Amino acid sequence: MKKILIDCDPGIDDALAIALAHGSPDLEVVGLTSVGGNVGLEHTTTNALCLTEFYGMTVPVARGADRPLIRDPRDASEVHGPNGLGNVVLPAPERTPRNEHAVEFIIDTLAASPGEISLTAVGPLTNIALALRREPRIAEWVREFVIMGGSYTRGNNTPAAEFNIAADPEAAAVVFGASWRTVMIGLDLTVQARATASVRSRFTEFGRFKQELLSPCLDFYGGSVPYRAGDGPPIHDACAVAYVLDPSLITTVPARVDVETHGRFTSGMTVTDFAGEPALHNALVATELRQDAFWDLLTDSFRTVASSLPGA
Amino acid sequence: MKKILIDCDPGIDDALAIALAHGSPDLEVVGLTSVGGNVGLEHTTTNALCLTEFYGMTVPVARGADRPLIRDPRDASEVHGPNGLGNVVLPAPERTPRNEHAVEFIIDTLAASPGEISLTAVGPLTNIALALRREPRIAEWVREFVIMGGSYTRGNNTPAAEFNIAADPEAAAVVFGASWRTVMIGLDLTVQARATASVRSRFTEFGRFKQELLSPCLDFYGGSVPYRAGDGPPIHDACAVAYVLDPSLITTVPARVDVETHGRFTSGMTVTDFAGEPALHNALVATELRQDAFWDLLTDSFRTVASSLPGA
Amino acid sequence: MKKILIDCDPGIDDALAIALAHGSPDLEVVGLTSVGGNVGLEHTTTNALCLTEFYGMTVPVARGADRPLIRDPRDASEVHGPNGLGNVVLPAPERTPRNEHAVEFIIDTLAASPGEISLTAVGPLTNIALALRREPRIAEWVREFVIMGGSYTRGNNTPAAEFNIAADPEAAAVVFGASWRTVMIGLDLTVQARATASVRSRFTEFGRFKQELLSPCLDFYGGSVPYRAGDGPPIHDACAVAYVLDPSLITTVPARVDVETHGRFTSGMTVTDFAGEPALHNALVATELRQDAFWDLLTDSFRTVASSLPGA
Amino acid sequence: MKKILIDCDPGIDDALAIALAHGSPDLEVVGLTSVGGNVGLEHTTTNALCLTEFYGMTVPVARGADRPLIRDPRDASEVHGPNGLGNVVLPAPERTPRNEHAVEFIIDTLAASPGEISLTAVGPLTNIALALRREPRIAEWVREFVIMGGSYTRGNNTPAAEFNIAADPEAAAVVFGASWRTVMIGLDLTVQARATASVRSRFTEFGRFKQELLSPCLDFYGGSVPYRAGDGPPIHDACAVAYVLDPSLITTVPARVDVETHGRFTSGMTVTDFAGEPALHNALVATELRQDAFWDLLTDSFRTVASSLPGA
Repeated sequence: MKKILIDCDPGIDDALAIALAHGSPDLEVVGLTSVGGNVGLEHTTTNALCLTEFYGMTVPVARGADRPLIRDPRDASEVHGPNGLGNVVLPAPERTPRNEHAVEFIIDTLAASPGEISLTAVGPLTNIALALRREPRIAEWVREFVIMGGSYTRGNNTPAAEFNIAADPEAAAVVFGASWRTVMIGLDLTVQARATASVRSRFTEFGRFKQELLSPCLDFYGGSVPYRAGDGPPIHDACAVAYVLDPSLITTVPARVDVETHGRFTSGMTVTDFAGEPALHNALVATELRQDAFWDLLTDSFRTVASSLPGA
Repeated sequence: MKKILIDCDPGIDDALAIALAHGSPDLEVVGLTSVGGNVGLEHTTTNALCLTEFYGMTVPVARGADRPLIRDPRDASEVHGPNGLGNVVLPAPERTPRNEHAVEFIIDTLAASPGEISLTAVGPLTNIALALRREPRIAEWVREFVIMGGSYTRGNNTPAAEFNIAADPEAAAVVFGASWRTVMIGLDLTVQARATASVRSRFTEFGRFKQELLSPCLDFYGGSVPYRAGDGPPIHDACAVAYVLDPSLITTVPARVDVETHGRFTSGMTVTDFAGEPALHNALVATELRQDAFWDLLTDSFRTVASSLPGA
Repeated sequence: MKKILIDCDPGIDDALAIALAHGSPDLEVVGLTSVGGNVGLEHTTTNALCLTEFYGMTVPVARGADRPLIRDPRDASEVHGPNGLGNVVLPAPERTPRNEHAVEFIIDTLAASPGEISLTAVGPLTNIALALRREPRIAEWVREFVIMGGSYTRGNNTPAAEFNIAADPEAAAVVFGASWRTVMIGLDLTVQARATASVRSRFTEFGRFKQELLSPCLDFYGGSVPYRAGDGPPIHDACAVAYVLDPSLITTVPARVDVETHGRFTSGMTVTDFAGEPALHNALVATELRQDAFWDLLTDSFRTVASSLPGA
Repeated sequence: MKKILIDCDPGIDDALAIALAHGSPDLEVVGLTSVGGNVGLEHTTTNALCLTEFYGMTVPVARGADRPLIRDPRDASEVHGPNGLGNVVLPAPERTPRNEHAVEFIIDTLAASPGEISLTAVGPLTNIALALRREPRIAEWVREFVIMGGSYTRGNNTPAAEFNIAADPEAAAVVFGASWRTVMIGLDLTVQARATASVRSRFTEFGRFKQELLSPCLDFYGGSVPYRAGDGPPIHDACAVAYVLDPSLITTVPARVDVETHGRFTSGMTVTDFAGEPALHNALVATELRQDAFWDLLTDSFRTVASSLPGA
């Protein structure tokens, strides 16, 4: 069974990504680490705890960085709501985060199982960058490193930059500069994963999961993320977990990705060169999603989550 | 009859753009100004003179800037050949450039016919920027200002930047910052204007024009610009002239365009924001080409040029 | 007799620099060109005209650039007063500027007397940069090129940058990148030229010049430029003219000067490397002023100006 | 008794700073942390261990960051020799570094004694920045935070930047941005602490300390750091420790310090604004050294170290 450690900033699509991982019979979630991003660290940490309780997960949660490596913090609360989960208010968590900081948790967890864990980051990359600088060998210890972030065409936070990278460009530069090959599940891919009405109709039977989380979250998200009539909001983060579950769902192309940290209008852009020397390629860039198979996988996982909830 | 002043760096697609303008019964070319770009200024000036002689044009040619506003010069001779016209060697020109520098020629020409002339720039924007700083009122004197340059997704000179803008980002920043509304015919549009085999089959009867210029130029260009089998190289610059001839050929969308001048990996990118305050919009950005009508227009114009050549 | 063309933005210390040049028997002023700087272009042009009338000069005045090469304009009216000459209001000028723009005037004047004219710029370097891009050969045609601007330690406009360079860093980058060797009379030198009470006591007999211009200007300037008790405000621009009159007044050291155009906090800094390869040296940087000789020269010149004024 | 934790990259002047701290009866060294800087991390860590053994110190040594936060590493081995201590080769250390990383050691040590420890950093600021991002409260837990680094006039690594800041500008930006008030002992101060022949004559009786460390180190250093005849090389790092020992030795002035991270020629410059709003002041900047008292203090400390060495 594959193992995954998810660094996240829940966040509506983070909540779905965690459910996708938890509900899959092929994946063991070995930990969640929180980072400031979609909303502030206190919210993302609390949400990570609440969500694991709601899903019935016992996985450790470690609190991470409350601000970017260098820059001032900013969030995306206009997309995810003031507490990060739209209008959803889960019960206050009984669980508490680990005493260990996320950076140490990541390092220690990877060190304990070299070659076994997919490290998957779906928020700003601050924790990952700090961990790399503290212990460069984590780049060798992961089974693979997958992010939701970036774009090779246009951004969503600015015309040039995607939110997770724009929120901490210097951390992203550190991460893409490490010795692993980053799997970049960027906007070009994730906008192919839209929660349309047709998709959502498959969640009808999912009881409390649907009523208390899925529906209100997607309703809120669908109201804050712009999309065309007939379409739906893209559930970005779930795509990164889907790649870990089944890489054949997503076409990837080797490329060189450099993160712009100095531009006036382009800060946080993932400048992606598909040409150039293969020796300089530092990333696998996602280009195409097998949508039907993706939604099948996600629906199966969600069904498992739904049926395991108390009172389901 | 519309009037056009073309600032150019011939350049293979410049040669086609000039032919398109010259062959059209609806357009009077009031001058050509040269700038260093695809190849050095000596070549682009000589080519402007040679091409006007070859086409039988008597239009004035003025020599412009030999280097960017701030940066070191670079060229695209790997695309356009060492002399700028692939393997074509036209007879040495008998004509000479005007004594006036391009910057003064542009200012004086626009001042003499305010509201009448479409200023169309299909090379780096150095001359235009220098003219704006010398005489800011040219922004009011043009009938419209159209460029071939930029992109709202990806570049060709770098992953982020199109050649004409990358060659002189500061000049482009000045130009987009002026009080006119720049019509940006960028790569997203021009890659829809590909000289495929099917397109080229329409040039069969064009005698000397075809044999001495069109065919060798397009053969060379097709060898240096990468494209997929079945496709053909995009003839960028002709699209800007086509817009002047008939704006209905090209869909445009208002946007804010900022030119990145400070990035490490994004210098020369035209960062394009279609959202944002309309009051901040400084450009009309081309998005879609009516291809059939475009090629009809171009073929008609080329036929006129071809039939007027001595010995045609 | 040496010839000098002064590009300026009068400006209180510009007014003194012009007087120094005009009053010297060894220097012929062949023209003044105006640039936006200490105050806006309309004021600097008007002041150049007024001052030449006041001094009885018949030298041509040409109007130049109203804004920097790339950036938005800013001024130093807090130092020079809203009209640029403190509280001094000279009669409206009867003279008018040349029809020619400053850029052409500079080019034409230098072209007509290659090797003879000291080009001296004591404002932002916009006109000079535009002239270089229009006609690179002016770098060969000057006898020498001298600026008031920059610093090799600290600035006055920002902690890192001197006003003239900070006002148009890109122009300064062009100017220092040209093939001439710029003589940089920067703040490190000019703060040695302070109009103390003792210095000003030498102007007592200078009649109208003193009463109508020198005293009110220096009083205003002394109130707006911070200095220690017992000291006086530095009359920056006059130092550049003094160098042209007698280079032995000022020690200079060869150096490489690069202008920072990309910094967040250092834009407009003249980064000065006294070490490094002599082949890379592009400037002579002023370090030490022979103060007594400087004030003797200036006093003699001012006396000549004073005695030639009508009603003196 | 004051407590000091020294983050360092020994380094010749680091070796002297450690001796100054160790030999003083008023200061307890609670730990050394190593960082890559003057030479690579393996050398600086080994040197920290060797030096403590040589000096007879039992203080813990923790290994820190081997590279800057974002940038590629560079060293100053041309100044400090390939192993960091000139030609001195101390016996291989019997001690080993702590298991804990420097970042955790710093956090844990400060957490254990809030308000008691002077954190003093005399190398690149990577460890300190990482610690701040891991545990922002260290900014409240220190008694004071003192660095050797920066300059408010000119640099030594580049014309604009001092080595420690130039080596990791982003880390320095984090450090100056934290909620403490950084005491910046920069080049303007440290060049007043020159090990002249007269100074060195005071070390004559210092036996093994002199023969095996002081003399060969200062000989090497004096050969690699340029200075004028009659002068000597500045022993930068010792000044920061001297400030901790006796702040009255050094005049400081409140200022705003911003670290340039974006410049082409100014990266790593500590842009220092002595004016501006006091509320924005984030540093105390050292300006003047009481030289005689400084050397007296250092000589006393060195005498204590010398007399305690085995075989002294």
